Amino acid sequence: MSGSLVIAGLGPGAEAMVTPEVTAALAEATDVVGYIPYVARILPREGLTLHPSDNRVELDRARAALQMAAVGRRVVIVSSGDPGVFAMASAVFEALEDAPEWQRLDIRVLPGITAMLAAAAAAGAPLGHDFCCINLSDNLKPWEVIEARLRHAAQGDFAMAFYNPRSASRPDTFAKALEVLRQECGPDRLILFARAVSTPDQVINTVALGDATPEMADMRTVVIVGNAATRRVGRWVYTPRRAL
Amino acid sequence: MSGSLVIAGLGPGAEAMVTPEVTAALAEATDVVGYIPYVARILPREGLTLHPSDNRVELDRARAALQMAAVGRRVVIVSSGDPGVFAMASAVFEALEDAPEWQRLDIRVLPGITAMLAAAAAAGAPLGHDFCCINLSDNLKPWEVIEARLRHAAQGDFAMAFYNPRSASRPDTFAKALEVLRQECGPDRLILFARAVSTPDQVINTVALGDATPEMADMRTVVIVGNAATRRVGRWVYTPRRAL
Repeated sequence: MSGSLVIAGLGPGAEAMVTPEVTAALAEATDVVGYIPYVARILPREGLTLHPSDNRVELDRARAALQMAAVGRRVVIVSSGDPGVFAMASAVFEALEDAPEWQRLDIRVLPGITAMLAAAAAAGAPLGHDFCCINLSDNLKPWEVIEARLRHAAQGDFAMAFYNPRSASRPDTFAKALEVLRQECGPDRLILFARAVSTPDQVINTVALGDATPEMADMRTVVIVGNAATRRVGRWVYTPRRAL
Repeated sequence: MSGSLVIAGLGPGAEAMVTPEVTAALAEATDVVGYIPYVARILPREGLTLHPSDNRVELDRARAALQMAAVGRRVVIVSSGDPGVFAMASAVFEALEDAPEWQRLDIRVLPGITAMLAAAAAAGAPLGHDFCCINLSDNLKPWEVIEARLRHAAQGDFAMAFYNPRSASRPDTFAKALEVLRQECGPDRLILFARAVSTPDQVINTVALGDATPEMADMRTVVIVGNAATRRVGRWVYTPRRAL
């Protein structure tokens, strides 16, 4: 049997946002690998082995998946959202760099609906003009890099989407980010906190930057900051197609 | 009958990338509105009226769709990719700004797989770290804004994805963008041209910035520029999760 590795995006949570090609790959899998809450979304069935693992072991998980594919298993690594946006695809290619013998394997990346686009759709169209997408976690980069990117994004008048804004292990990063954003964008800029997007727990809270507090975000929140033209219309928030 | 308006993303082209919620909305529609090639993707059926329209009439199309929803039709506006990324969602909210009487309508935005993420998945994981998404069309913003954003994105060491890099009506913008990128990023930075992503015509061409020419892009191309760490591994291109 010839093995394969699919790196698949499950979308933000709703089953109605899982693409048919991802559903088909899961139906053919012998093994599903991923972070515990994402593997929990996969229905058990005869012939399928689930391999849930903890957070922050991405490289080990990627190597284990490649190893199984190399011995003939049909492996799917599941990520929430899109696997290429702060998720498992980069970790797999990192693992491949050190293991040329695995580079000839049948490997495919299947995109998914990433959280910022599901959040934007639920809120209106806040990313309807040029935007930046920034991971606020400082696990893999120093705060100085994050700060510089926030300032460039603001000075270029990009809208912004932030992943991993806040976790228990680094409660201060997001407070510092809000301070930088207030300096650069002023207190009236709109900021949108989208929690548990597309699930029954979904909450979207839009406030002015001057009223934003760090507690408005947690690990399940994606944050969107508008550009200078972003505005409310009715119950929605949108960014016009024209630059100011 | 109570009307509704759904603004739906069809993904980049492959039917296997259309989400089930978009398929369900189309199955219930009485009217489908959109740019000619996107409406051409919808199968005709009894009880469904197709309303294809030309490019660059987004606001008129949005108003026509809202008008039909207001008189009780179940209208779906289709966009390629994601409707919130340089597509119809912002145009609808612009139209709503001038028409408060339509703001009480049942309006929903359904996300789709946007071209840059399908292109990234096909190529590996070039957007695996912080990135910017820029519309290179100068229809709705002056070149000076585009240039400033390119420089901020490069100086912040963001990866970048460009939509609408080049069209017959403005052949020079992309040549100027390549020149700015070469100044900021040097000749060795990887740039990836992804044409007709997810369709049978898909071609992905990765070169060094010093070897890139404007003719490598056309209206069906999405362009991705790596950050300083973006590299090749085997037949893929990826951006590591760590900042340099």
